Amino acid sequence: MTVKVAINGYGTIGKRVADAVLKQKDMELVGVTKTKPNYEAKLASGMGIKVYASLAENIKLFDAAGMRIAGSLEDLLNQADIVVDCTPGKVGATYKPLYERHRLKAIFQGGEKHEVAGFSFNAVCNYKGAIGRDFVRVVSCNTTGLCRSLYALDKAFGIKKARVVLVRRGADPAEDSKGPINSIVPDPVTIPSHHGPDVQKVLPHIDITTTALAVPETLMHVHILNVELQKDATEQDIIGAFSSYPRIRLVASADGISSTSGIIEYARDLGRIRYDLPELIIWKESIRSFGREIYLTQAVHQESIVVPEDIDAIRAMTKLTESPEESMRLTNESLGLGR
Amino acid sequence: MTVKVAINGYGTIGKRVADAVLKQKDMELVGVTKTKPNYEAKLASGMGIKVYASLAENIKLFDAAGMRIAGSLEDLLNQADIVVDCTPGKVGATYKPLYERHRLKAIFQGGEKHEVAGFSFNAVCNYKGAIGRDFVRVVSCNTTGLCRSLYALDKAFGIKKARVVLVRRGADPAEDSKGPINSIVPDPVTIPSHHGPDVQKVLPHIDITTTALAVPETLMHVHILNVELQKDATEQDIIGAFSSYPRIRLVASADGISSTSGIIEYARDLGRIRYDLPELIIWKESIRSFGREIYLTQAVHQESIVVPEDIDAIRAMTKLTESPEESMRLTNESLGLGR
Repeated sequence: MTVKVAINGYGTIGKRVADAVLKQKDMELVGVTKTKPNYEAKLASGMGIKVYASLAENIKLFDAAGMRIAGSLEDLLNQADIVVDCTPGKVGATYKPLYERHRLKAIFQGGEKHEVAGFSFNAVCNYKGAIGRDFVRVVSCNTTGLCRSLYALDKAFGIKKARVVLVRRGADPAEDSKGPINSIVPDPVTIPSHHGPDVQKVLPHIDITTTALAVPETLMHVHILNVELQKDATEQDIIGAFSSYPRIRLVASADGISSTSGIIEYARDLGRIRYDLPELIIWKESIRSFGREIYLTQAVHQESIVVPEDIDAIRAMTKLTESPEESMRLTNESLGLGR
Repeated sequence: MTVKVAINGYGTIGKRVADAVLKQKDMELVGVTKTKPNYEAKLASGMGIKVYASLAENIKLFDAAGMRIAGSLEDLLNQADIVVDCTPGKVGATYKPLYERHRLKAIFQGGEKHEVAGFSFNAVCNYKGAIGRDFVRVVSCNTTGLCRSLYALDKAFGIKKARVVLVRRGADPAEDSKGPINSIVPDPVTIPSHHGPDVQKVLPHIDITTTALAVPETLMHVHILNVELQKDATEQDIIGAFSSYPRIRLVASADGISSTSGIIEYARDLGRIRYDLPELIIWKESIRSFGREIYLTQAVHQESIVVPEDIDAIRAMTKLTESPEESMRLTNESLGLGR
């Protein structure tokens, strides 16, 4: 069986999910939408991806740019089994009635509220809950990173309480109009930030408080975790617990990977396309145990960490497989994730 | 009685301590040292401050620049009752034998190890311990900020445990050769950072763990505090506790002071010279109580926060007054700190 996947929105997340869908043997990419004929649309078209116009009234723009357009968004939706909504945050919700009218399953991204889909997804945490569902929300990059490490710690040692400070990148690399440039911005100034409650949408039993701020950096988010466990764990125990998860990668500052720019240089040297790093990165040296209370520092590549989760969500919702392990194995192998 | 103060090093801290000494009725600034005749030396000279050459072999540089030099470092030390060492971190220690030879009391900055002075100082925390001492170290900007808020919380509610994440400015505004430019740097990657142990040099009974990272920003450090108290405190209780300390200033994000750049814009509008803000800044909205466990976010102006502490250290060591309240009142009034 092959599932026909449409992608609405071919920006930061959409173009990466499209690439990932193309690598799955059990999926077919029927097309993507773009609002305007920019370079991304042209690259997609050049790669043989069918590009549809998000807005019917913009088809003339594609014509004017000499770009052959495959049709309108509705034309695309008519051919698909499932749509991955990769439109900007809060815009996805406005498309839900259209997806429903087309009797299409739909995946929303973390920029939408939980209620838009009614189910917030992270593959390792709750794949089975997504099986057969019509609507699923893949949680945001920060929440995805937290879910991965907290799930692993909770599984191995039990979590009594987690306190997390998120130091967020101010903007993605090409977002020229966003800041801050020279400022540290409590974002929000109130505590908790939305990330704690968002983690609880996926892992309801985790007691977590999060504080967030934005800084002038474009490469990755950094999280500082303080976790009280239900039993003692040594640093080696913790490293051992993380080692069995292919979507968590431990790096050593001693190897020269001592900052987010160091991590990205590493991804570039690994030959990763767009220097993407869908794995959650944890610094080995940052793992510190005081018995039941531990600390660690992790980094999240905001542009790519959710991509494997979107792929697994497609498999769960369309019942390509009901085994989380099987889906994650297929995704990880196709994307080159893991050891 | 008037105490004669020499300042060795007229850089970021030295020039500010010099300005502050000039405002004290019980102190006389006998002079400052500079290694080279740069614009700071020329400004000082233009203000009527006597400038001495840190290095005798550099006197010719001042001559060549047409700057009248008052003499060598030793000439300066011969006239002083006390020297405030404001040389770069770790350099201060190398001057200690010279200060001893001149039978001079000396204040070192936080860039030196505790052992260089044997006593780490923060006015509100341990003024009395510095009375009559020959050597005192004024702790660093980050430690000073933490001492102020933790002391206030401890005094009012008792502290059981403090967990702090420090988001450090990468460089001071004019440090063109320092980074990071586009990177978040765990600094250090290991936990705890030196700040926790340093706070304990001043407040030995406080159980504190600190994690630190550096970001591409030049204006202020930001600290996120999680504190377990010995008794319940509401947000109003906490605001009340801070309100009695003139060196702690609460600001409201709702007033538009929503980031470090917002704070500095506020300091500029207050007409503060060099936009200095020796007060510890705490965002009102960031204060959050969960009963005995509380959170808050504070910002530290790294260039100026220690200045009033240096002034108080001079008073304690030279016994100008044995009353911490009296010294802090004089310092605060002269520098315009407080409500």
